Amino acid sequence: MINTKPLSGYMELLPGEQVEFDRIKKIIEETYASYGFTFLDTPAVERREVLMAKGGEELDKQIYFVNNGLYSEKENETALRFDLTVPLARYVSEHFNDLTFPFRRAHIAKVYRGERAQKGRFREFYQCDIDIIGRDKLSINYDAEIPSIIYEIFKKLDFGKFKIKISNRKLFNGLFDILKISAPINKTLHILDKIEKMSESELESELKELELNDFQINELKKFISIKGSISEVISGLKSLNIEDELFLEGILDLETITNRMLDFGVNKDYFELDLSIVRGLDYYTGTVYETVLENSSIGSVCSGGRYEALTSNYSNQKMPGVGISIGLSRLFFQLREIGIIKAENKTNANVIIIPAEKENISGAIKVSNYLREKGFKVDIILEESNMKKKFAYVDKLNPKNTVVIKTIENKELISIQQKINGEVFKKEVSLGNILESLS
Amino acid sequence: MINTKPLSGYMELLPGEQVEFDRIKKIIEETYASYGFTFLDTPAVERREVLMAKGGEELDKQIYFVNNGLYSEKENETALRFDLTVPLARYVSEHFNDLTFPFRRAHIAKVYRGERAQKGRFREFYQCDIDIIGRDKLSINYDAEIPSIIYEIFKKLDFGKFKIKISNRKLFNGLFDILKISAPINKTLHILDKIEKMSESELESELKELELNDFQINELKKFISIKGSISEVISGLKSLNIEDELFLEGILDLETITNRMLDFGVNKDYFELDLSIVRGLDYYTGTVYETVLENSSIGSVCSGGRYEALTSNYSNQKMPGVGISIGLSRLFFQLREIGIIKAENKTNANVIIIPAEKENISGAIKVSNYLREKGFKVDIILEESNMKKKFAYVDKLNPKNTVVIKTIENKELISIQQKINGEVFKKEVSLGNILESLS
Repeated sequence: MINTKPLSGYMELLPGEQVEFDRIKKIIEETYASYGFTFLDTPAVERREVLMAKGGEELDKQIYFVNNGLYSEKENETALRFDLTVPLARYVSEHFNDLTFPFRRAHIAKVYRGERAQKGRFREFYQCDIDIIGRDKLSINYDAEIPSIIYEIFKKLDFGKFKIKISNRKLFNGLFDILKISAPINKTLHILDKIEKMSESELESELKELELNDFQINELKKFISIKGSISEVISGLKSLNIEDELFLEGILDLETITNRMLDFGVNKDYFELDLSIVRGLDYYTGTVYETVLENSSIGSVCSGGRYEALTSNYSNQKMPGVGISIGLSRLFFQLREIGIIKAENKTNANVIIIPAEKENISGAIKVSNYLREKGFKVDIILEESNMKKKFAYVDKLNPKNTVVIKTIENKELISIQQKINGEVFKKEVSLGNILESLS
Repeated sequence: MINTKPLSGYMELLPGEQVEFDRIKKIIEETYASYGFTFLDTPAVERREVLMAKGGEELDKQIYFVNNGLYSEKENETALRFDLTVPLARYVSEHFNDLTFPFRRAHIAKVYRGERAQKGRFREFYQCDIDIIGRDKLSINYDAEIPSIIYEIFKKLDFGKFKIKISNRKLFNGLFDILKISAPINKTLHILDKIEKMSESELESELKELELNDFQINELKKFISIKGSISEVISGLKSLNIEDELFLEGILDLETITNRMLDFGVNKDYFELDLSIVRGLDYYTGTVYETVLENSSIGSVCSGGRYEALTSNYSNQKMPGVGISIGLSRLFFQLREIGIIKAENKTNANVIIIPAEKENISGAIKVSNYLREKGFKVDIILEESNMKKKFAYVDKLNPKNTVVIKTIENKELISIQQKINGEVFKKEVSLGNILESLS
């Protein structure tokens, strides 16, 4: 027999799980749309040179090349996209003259990475991206809109308390500049990140390996130890008295963003300034975001930031942007693992209609038409089997409402069954009052 | 510079076109959902043996193999799906014990075929499929539900008058059987299909090449000439007096389906029995459908039918089903070519808010929050540029409503601008009556 298992590293959901996955995806999609983003849907296959423009040996290993026996001219000239940012950069470069800037684009789609298969790591996974791309410039105000959208999404998703952590790369750039630190920022931050896990002397010895002197180490420690409320962090940063232009710009950015987020209605308990955010520092140039769920330890579920040169590999235009991405497949997998996501609905329908006998099929179809017109999702059993089998179908799918159409004494009757907290309630209704009886 | 054009044969839309494409896709999706279908989202990559199970040399040429430098064990062992039916068959076989039958599944996704690039033929394209799969059996009633769903979709899409053409493969099977025709059904039908384009003698000579005798040819011509209203076709079929069980079953099927479609509310002007439908006869075993738009000559835009052995290549279960597919990418392309689809909205937003000055940004954000809560899709200009530039943005995107927030004599005012038939209307409103002023 042919192996029908999905390929290793590829997520495949059962109907109940898929209903839940789609519910989450729809919340993300509708919220992105409500902020006026235009959705793109670029091809999943791109030219090798487009995908490889940024370079990197790791990339070469992760890319899935696509070849077709007959018509491809050269081998390994096209491949599946590994993210949605490279296709965005290509799209904006190619269609520059047809776009209106700032360009608000959303893209929810699968991307592909040939990573070694392991639990919770997928080779095909959804990214849910939004980016706002400016032409030559882009106001810092947009850096406040992006996390406000994320706030709204995670409030609606209701996975529990979360926090959006915000920092600004300009602070590090300015700090390293003024302290004349020549060590790579990323490496240095990785060490500082472990400040709570290692002893003072271990930390210092690791930093000294990067050729940092005592003064530099001391200043970095002072910087990283700034914590507290937003106003406390801002005044902490100011009290460092660092007269570097970039550093001061970073402080101003953070002040503007946090004020504007309040305008957007973000509850102040849901975001904070966290100077330890390390994320993608080689790409981002200003604001950076991470989002953590406070009742789990699954790490950042939504990250992004401000960048200055989206299209530098593909065009001469200067295109700054700010964006964020939700790694939906991984998020779904992790939340299911820790029991926050449950797949309770086995069907997409909220009403299943059962015609008791063959003679009731016509009437049952008419009830289904009526309910569908009123916005219900209606499944109707058209198989002419016995009632036991029909109820077995309903019991397995477990919809909110079951509607039975039957004939008693030459009269066609509608009866509704609802399961509420495990108990079954039944009532007879007429077509006139069926709507108010459904849940 | 790197080539940023999308690959040949891959559709890439500009924002305005994408808004229209997504609007159409959403109508299809929501209608499928309203009939209680559960959406699947299987991996785009499948095992070679799964995709090749049915065999066929043509397939081997069309398949896009997927290879990854580092981790793949063997070359060309995985490939992109070329349709959504093979993944459905694999899925149903693999998850048989976790599914509830009849299983209503919808799947809207991209598929890949390495066809020679030509206008209107895509190598990556959307299919929008629904299928209802039975375990061992599936009532003919479902064969009526499927075209009723298609009717609802094309009514909503409003591309003009359309017709769903229905036939039944059992008629041909029965007819060929009773007439003892051993020629391949498909080949024979292809010739009969040209009946109006060729002379009597040409037709007969072609049919005789397939070794049909005069009697057989005559009977086939009588059959294919049955046309008219549904009742006329049914009685025409009956008057042939063919006492073949399969043939009679075919007539009964057509009667049941057409009656049930009326129950589902399908207007009788929108479907007909058309005995000349040739579609996929090697796979389908009963009902077959095609859908044509009457104001265009683009051929069938939505086809499908009844089959008996969905999973025969992957499992020993008997699984009959009935389904239909809309080839969305091709449909969109064709309707755009003939001007039925226009991309008039350049933005997904129905409101763009302009803060006149920096001091109005905070108030403008609050108006945007309010409108979003009320269900509007709101884009807000956060760039601090001059009014000329802000209006240039609005003019390019051409939203239904533009809302300007400005301060006059220390009072913040809201003014709305709407373009109706090219004319611009302006009015001052308060937050209290803004909703009724928007369109």
